[in-house]
Amino acid sequence: MALMPPEPDQPRPGDQSWLASANDAQTDFPLANLLYGVFRRAGRQHIGVAIGDQILDLEACAESGMLKTLPHDLLMACKADWLNPLMALGVSAWSKLRNHFTSLLSSQADPDTRDHLATCLVPMHDAQMQLPAQIGDYTDFYASIHHARRVGALFRPDNPLLPNYKHIPIAYHGRSSSIVTSGSEIHRPSGQTKSVSGNPGFGPSRSLDYELEVGFFIGPGNPLGAPIPIAEAEQHIFGLCLVNDWSARDMQTWEYQPLGPFLAKSFATTISCWIVPLAALAPYRAPVPEREPGDPEPLAYLRLPSMQCGAIDLILEANLQSRLMRTTGVPEMQLSVTNLRQLYWTPAQMLAHHTSNGCNLRPGDLLASGTVSGPEDGSEGCLLEKRHNPESICLPSGELRTFLEDGDRVTLRAWCQKPGLPRIGFGECTGTIVPAANHSRP
Amino acid sequence: MALMPPEPDQPRPGDQSWLASANDAQTDFPLANLLYGVFRRAGRQHIGVAIGDQILDLEACAESGMLKTLPHDLLMACKADWLNPLMALGVSAWSKLRNHFTSLLSSQADPDTRDHLATCLVPMHDAQMQLPAQIGDYTDFYASIHHARRVGALFRPDNPLLPNYKHIPIAYHGRSSSIVTSGSEIHRPSGQTKSVSGNPGFGPSRSLDYELEVGFFIGPGNPLGAPIPIAEAEQHIFGLCLVNDWSARDMQTWEYQPLGPFLAKSFATTISCWIVPLAALAPYRAPVPEREPGDPEPLAYLRLPSMQCGAIDLILEANLQSRLMRTTGVPEMQLSVTNLRQLYWTPAQMLAHHTSNGCNLRPGDLLASGTVSGPEDGSEGCLLEKRHNPESICLPSGELRTFLEDGDRVTLRAWCQKPGLPRIGFGECTGTIVPAANHSRP
Repeated sequence: MALMPPEPDQPRPGDQSWLASANDAQTDFPLANLLYGVFRRAGRQHIGVAIGDQILDLEACAESGMLKTLPHDLLMACKADWLNPLMALGVSAWSKLRNHFTSLLSSQADPDTRDHLATCLVPMHDAQMQLPAQIGDYTDFYASIHHARRVGALFRPDNPLLPNYKHIPIAYHGRSSSIVTSGSEIHRPSGQTKSVSGNPGFGPSRSLDYELEVGFFIGPGNPLGAPIPIAEAEQHIFGLCLVNDWSARDMQTWEYQPLGPFLAKSFATTISCWIVPLAALAPYRAPVPEREPGDPEPLAYLRLPSMQCGAIDLILEANLQSRLMRTTGVPEMQLSVTNLRQLYWTPAQMLAHHTSNGCNLRPGDLLASGTVSGPEDGSEGCLLEKRHNPESICLPSGELRTFLEDGDRVTLRAWCQKPGLPRIGFGECTGTIVPAANHSRP
Repeated sequence: MALMPPEPDQPRPGDQSWLASANDAQTDFPLANLLYGVFRRAGRQHIGVAIGDQILDLEACAESGMLKTLPHDLLMACKADWLNPLMALGVSAWSKLRNHFTSLLSSQADPDTRDHLATCLVPMHDAQMQLPAQIGDYTDFYASIHHARRVGALFRPDNPLLPNYKHIPIAYHGRSSSIVTSGSEIHRPSGQTKSVSGNPGFGPSRSLDYELEVGFFIGPGNPLGAPIPIAEAEQHIFGLCLVNDWSARDMQTWEYQPLGPFLAKSFATTISCWIVPLAALAPYRAPVPEREPGDPEPLAYLRLPSMQCGAIDLILEANLQSRLMRTTGVPEMQLSVTNLRQLYWTPAQMLAHHTSNGCNLRPGDLLASGTVSGPEDGSEGCLLEKRHNPESICLPSGELRTFLEDGDRVTLRAWCQKPGLPRIGFGECTGTIVPAANHSRP
């Protein structure tokens, strides 16, 4: 099932919610989106659905009998502390739940339903968002050829794009313990870097960078030893989020050979709090970019059943606001804008490749795209890629930036838009750099 | 606390257990060991302590009142499904529990205690062992310089040992979902490899290898942003196990640049079922090998408080038995024997490095040493390293081996021995290669 056509009872373009804030043209969270997240209330974690400026508390919905028509396992998944049980249930359960909430929140819902549901709403600004799932394993891909080319040219000027790139969706295992929610402060990491003298030293990174990425939360997944065929791959994607894979470039350069990045990335990875269901993105699916002349055909296990809608037309941007800008009321500056549809490898290809050796994916595992960059200037998904331009970035405050400074706040955003359809947003993925912790060292 | 001197009430060399099988000179599990594991009984998981040919069921011990003198959190940790809660409690709790079991199982225990305890014993051969903990993240190091040199020479003949090796305990994030217990069958993975023609193809790996490693289970760990100083590092090691980091060398060669190994390793990692407490290894601590003349001093955050006992004198061996050998009753053949004390980086250095950027370790996380090899012929911890010898390995059955064939069983073992002390063993870490699964591919 590479195609995800809109379900018959998904909201139609003009459908409105009885909740006014969901109909605001600028909201990330209209009726057509219905993202899932986890928030804390009264000392306990609840699953919620984002709608306008409110969160529908699924525990409260269940208690007030609004979910009583759902199958028992789905009801129990709605009352869980994390989204993992819901992720495990698979597409037909997800579709049932999405249709249920669409009806309840639609302007066609009867007054009784509205009254009941209104008691289950929590204002977003009152909720303390948590990680949406217990993330077992986190895998980060390298699926943007534009990113791979620009970064490759810096690390390996004579050999920017390695011979395997067009054959394999390259990836590495990331660290799941240090994944944090949007809004968490990011301590500048300390680590080994090589000084000009050639001797390594230990200290705070001097080239801290962001990476603009998209994450894919795994649904049912597969048992060990049973690869997921590419035609079924999208059935195992519960939904998408934003990922900022913070990177200390000086540490990375010194440590990455021969086993790949380690401490240069494992100090923190920020994800957005809300998961956009894959079904919500159905109207924004896009053709896979044509490969360049002379590029190899993907091997059979990576060949998409259709090229017509393997990609996702998702606009992504990264924004920066320095401490000075914040204190003087200067709004954030856009650093880059790019689009997920330009990836060389699609989400289905990444997932099929990941399991092709029999590796098991579990509900709640996170796959990320790697830095999403486009070919044009201004579409670079990280600061490192901007180094091909020798001039530093000039902020509206007059400050210059090559890499991130303490106090800088990076905010990632993403949205889909199409004439005649409501805008679907991801919420934000933000993090502020704070000084390196005082490491207790002898 | 780099030193772990024997606790005053640890068993003395001559101490015997009232359980005869624990006093057998050949057992891996004497009174001085007391390993922890998790097993399944009556549909539920219980924590157990290995003693002779028996498992002491801690749930049963708790129910029969044998743990009633322990603090509440320790009692609850003994009744948990996994070892994570016990791991989280830290060294003083571990020491209390170890002393308690040492008293209960010692030949000095009174007859009443023996009678009570006898009802809590489960014969090892009746128990179905499980993973000992929920492993959040798994990190694999590269701490044997002898392994790094031999492998480096094959992958990069002109550049075997990279410039960072003597400065950084190199590591990569591994896959935790595919960690399996000793005895699990290992499906030969399929994947992309490069053919002689230069074009990549997809199929079963033709160079499947084992890696003889030692794992370290994390105890309390650290919050994000708070590195563990090297002087405290060993307080965060709950215990050790054996690890076989199965590797598909043909897949690895093709995929590992630039982000390190991925599918070449993530299809399966086998660990032994029992965890040897670090305290049990106290009598076998050994001086850290002297660095070669001209080698750099470790940076301050990696400098050991004492070189006298930073290493562990642990003998390791890998054994092979082919299907033909098994069916004709030919015993396994020793492929290599080596020693953990020869690592270039100690466990404390690996742990301090891992957290030096603020990365958080959680109770139950697993760190592994990487392939443990010595400098001599016959001490290579994997088959790849034996490739410097152009002749294939000849098995007692007359079969030749370069890499593993279907039906081959690899068994890792490890033990400490010293005159006047009981032998302390790790149990075995075994896996049998079965043919590649039939991948459903278009």
